[in-house]
Amino acid sequence: QMALLCVASLLLVLSFVDAFQYSDLALYIDSHQEEYVEALRDWVAIESDSSNILKRPDLHRMMDVTAEKLREMGGNVVMVHPWAGIQIKLPGGQPLALPKVVTAHFGNDSQKHTVCIYGHVDVQPAKLEDGWRTEPYNLTEIDGNLYGRGASDNKAPVLAWIHAVEAYQALNMELPVNVKFVIEGMEETGSNGLDAMILAQRDTFFSDVDFIVISDCGWLSKRPALTYGTRGNCYFFAEVEGPRQDLHSGVYGGTVIEPMIDLIGILDTLISPSGKILIPGIREAVAPLTDEEWKMYQDIQFDFDHYKSKIGVSHLMYNNKVDLLAHRWRHPTVSIHGIEGAFSDPGTKTVIPAKVTAKFSIRQVPDMDPAVVKKQVTDYLHSVFAKRKSPNKLKVTMVIGAKPWLADTKHELYQAGKAAVKRVFNVDPDLIREGGTIPVARTFQDVTGKSIIMLPIGGFDDGLHSQNEKMSRYNYIEGTKLFIAYLHEVAQIKKSV
Amino acid sequence: QMALLCVASLLLVLSFVDAFQYSDLALYIDSHQEEYVEALRDWVAIESDSSNILKRPDLHRMMDVTAEKLREMGGNVVMVHPWAGIQIKLPGGQPLALPKVVTAHFGNDSQKHTVCIYGHVDVQPAKLEDGWRTEPYNLTEIDGNLYGRGASDNKAPVLAWIHAVEAYQALNMELPVNVKFVIEGMEETGSNGLDAMILAQRDTFFSDVDFIVISDCGWLSKRPALTYGTRGNCYFFAEVEGPRQDLHSGVYGGTVIEPMIDLIGILDTLISPSGKILIPGIREAVAPLTDEEWKMYQDIQFDFDHYKSKIGVSHLMYNNKVDLLAHRWRHPTVSIHGIEGAFSDPGTKTVIPAKVTAKFSIRQVPDMDPAVVKKQVTDYLHSVFAKRKSPNKLKVTMVIGAKPWLADTKHELYQAGKAAVKRVFNVDPDLIREGGTIPVARTFQDVTGKSIIMLPIGGFDDGLHSQNEKMSRYNYIEGTKLFIAYLHEVAQIKKSV
Repeated sequence: QMALLCVASLLLVLSFVDAFQYSDLALYIDSHQEEYVEALRDWVAIESDSSNILKRPDLHRMMDVTAEKLREMGGNVVMVHPWAGIQIKLPGGQPLALPKVVTAHFGNDSQKHTVCIYGHVDVQPAKLEDGWRTEPYNLTEIDGNLYGRGASDNKAPVLAWIHAVEAYQALNMELPVNVKFVIEGMEETGSNGLDAMILAQRDTFFSDVDFIVISDCGWLSKRPALTYGTRGNCYFFAEVEGPRQDLHSGVYGGTVIEPMIDLIGILDTLISPSGKILIPGIREAVAPLTDEEWKMYQDIQFDFDHYKSKIGVSHLMYNNKVDLLAHRWRHPTVSIHGIEGAFSDPGTKTVIPAKVTAKFSIRQVPDMDPAVVKKQVTDYLHSVFAKRKSPNKLKVTMVIGAKPWLADTKHELYQAGKAAVKRVFNVDPDLIREGGTIPVARTFQDVTGKSIIMLPIGGFDDGLHSQNEKMSRYNYIEGTKLFIAYLHEVAQIKKSV
Repeated sequence: QMALLCVASLLLVLSFVDAFQYSDLALYIDSHQEEYVEALRDWVAIESDSSNILKRPDLHRMMDVTAEKLREMGGNVVMVHPWAGIQIKLPGGQPLALPKVVTAHFGNDSQKHTVCIYGHVDVQPAKLEDGWRTEPYNLTEIDGNLYGRGASDNKAPVLAWIHAVEAYQALNMELPVNVKFVIEGMEETGSNGLDAMILAQRDTFFSDVDFIVISDCGWLSKRPALTYGTRGNCYFFAEVEGPRQDLHSGVYGGTVIEPMIDLIGILDTLISPSGKILIPGIREAVAPLTDEEWKMYQDIQFDFDHYKSKIGVSHLMYNNKVDLLAHRWRHPTVSIHGIEGAFSDPGTKTVIPAKVTAKFSIRQVPDMDPAVVKKQVTDYLHSVFAKRKSPNKLKVTMVIGAKPWLADTKHELYQAGKAAVKRVFNVDPDLIREGGTIPVARTFQDVTGKSIIMLPIGGFDDGLHSQNEKMSRYNYIEGTKLFIAYLHEVAQIKKSV
């Protein structure tokens, strides 16, 4: 009996070692890469811009296409309505439907870990006339780069996860872990309704999830990276309203206090030329930089000159690596995105705009609290506005309030990540943070209490949210292999009972 | 012989008195007013927006329609190419043709004065979604007001002049003066090429012109007015260019010096909250207010409260009539119209715009000089920008530089105007200035040396350049009568030999 057990154990170990035939899987990925590029082309062609309500039908179609793909793979797809309480009304009064969230799962073996992959298939706005060299919704390959809106953020990474699962299936290999998917369509506008949906499904869909993996970010350099933190974002509208309607600047100029001049005046009090945030209380809330962090930042691969030349500026806000990375990742900043309601077309128009709305945002880091920031910003702007003694009306609204997220880099999820990177790329990854926001990371952490890792495959120069967004073919294909390897590594984590 | 001369003189006087059958002409106008409204509807329907190069075909058509109308009336129409040296190149490199200027003349009697009517048939931009209650290019009558883009600025006044000449023709009455027309199509964007055309025709078309009449403005109240001055306008573009392309504000925020923040910073140094222009040298150049002016301003009919409630603000820049009118007419002001290149759509976009261009203008008054203002503004903005120590690039361009204009109110043209107003409206007109700019007034004065009057028929609340522009049916029809009466009065001015 003892001998039998031994043989059984040996067979088990052998079968296990045999089970991860990485080279077969990698070969399969390489030989199917044209299909993967075509799949990405099909997805990019759908203008799933979640910030433009006129594109809402495209966004719904994108969710359907995603669901159909996962359904064909046998993924037990359920399309979940985001929380019904979230209802945006159109100017005409009719409600604007939120896109459904696509959930799926592959495998149901309680002996295995269950990994939940989060991704999104909505995109930022894009127009050729913004300065794209190619049609933004027509995926175009130039020198190994696949240009198109949403290519890197976040359609290729979502597809890469799907291809990873498909490869196991195609080679009749058992998945080493159960894999769940949560794919949403409102990420670019603040993941409306998703928080509530996660909360509602905490004890159902998420009850057997052990780990959550997010691949909605990018490397810092050509060296692969694991991401352990993101900044949050508080997005504000500051509206100044004056005359009943736009006025001729010749006929009325000099007699009315112009809302645009009031707005410019208060915007100018947000941040100093050298980047110092002037809103009282904001900087004071930030966790101090530890010695350990300082040392880690020192060791990160980061090419200062390449960063500058890629952006196309002669100098940056800070001229040393640690300060620059710290202000990118772990300090707040103010960006002014634009003004709605003023004259923004080419040409000359001699108008006094009657109502102007500035859009600006403040990136959130530990230990800031969006609710506190909302009050700090609102109080501050009203106080500087009051000093102007303007008859115009100021209204400050926080339309997005997303918290930052920070993970423990010593967790086994990160050890698994290091091993997977080592296997595919034969280097050690950098441990980095992300300046941008992935609000759902924080929600997953707060609601499910599960551990989360961000495992990026996007390049450092993918141009997210800007013109000429791209995903390199290399990162897309090798990234798919990384996901395959990662599923294997996660399976090695000891399962707690 | 003496007796004969006497009889001849008497006959002449009698025939002359008989010749002006004002009531017949006024009756004719009243009975044709539906035709006039239809004519205005046809003209408003043509989207002759000169600031939008995509509308250029409509603008050319508007000039053709104007020429055809005058040609049908026997007006010896010549369509003049603006000076060929003015050539705007499209981004593709092909030249953008300027609309032709329509000239016409009626009558060629060297015993009579020759009056030249200037007007324009191009319009400001207009879109329903800017907040129009009616389709801007579909003339719509509500409560006696004719709503439509260009209705008051300047299509109805041009048509009223045409109807005035038509009425004399229809009743077989001889025109009391020779009438010339100069109708252009680039007024709203700075009358490109017109100055050169006037200069070129100084000794031909303009050689026999005695007086120039412009009706491209409005009354100050319900009381009719004669206008004796306009402000000029220096229109600036301030462009701040930074990164090569738009950047994600999460990924890059905190590391780059944002062009939008630089631009807001320098715009905030142009004018104080209380309306004080901060650019050195600008205020110092303004001619001081004379006692005579102060007294005249005191007597002008102006309803402070109505002005406020019409605009829809609780208080204005100044709280007494003289200061308010002075800052409307004879002091410079800064208006900030908007910013091109930043995010101006509805919704939330987390972008750091790479290149942003502010549009602002400074209204010009005697004794300012646009060439000096250009240097003052450019030097000042560069100096405040330099203090920011930004790596971004600032470019300041003055794209319009239009001088102010000021007439002598004691001139016979103004006496004629007072008499005509008295005849039609049975009141004395206010003598007013105009806050807006009619650059051609200054050019006519400088080039031809002839006297100019502005004879407005637009209402004080016509909403020029803004949403819901309108011309009241009353002002349109009574204004046509005013022009008829004015031609008669001008004929009474003693002809110098």
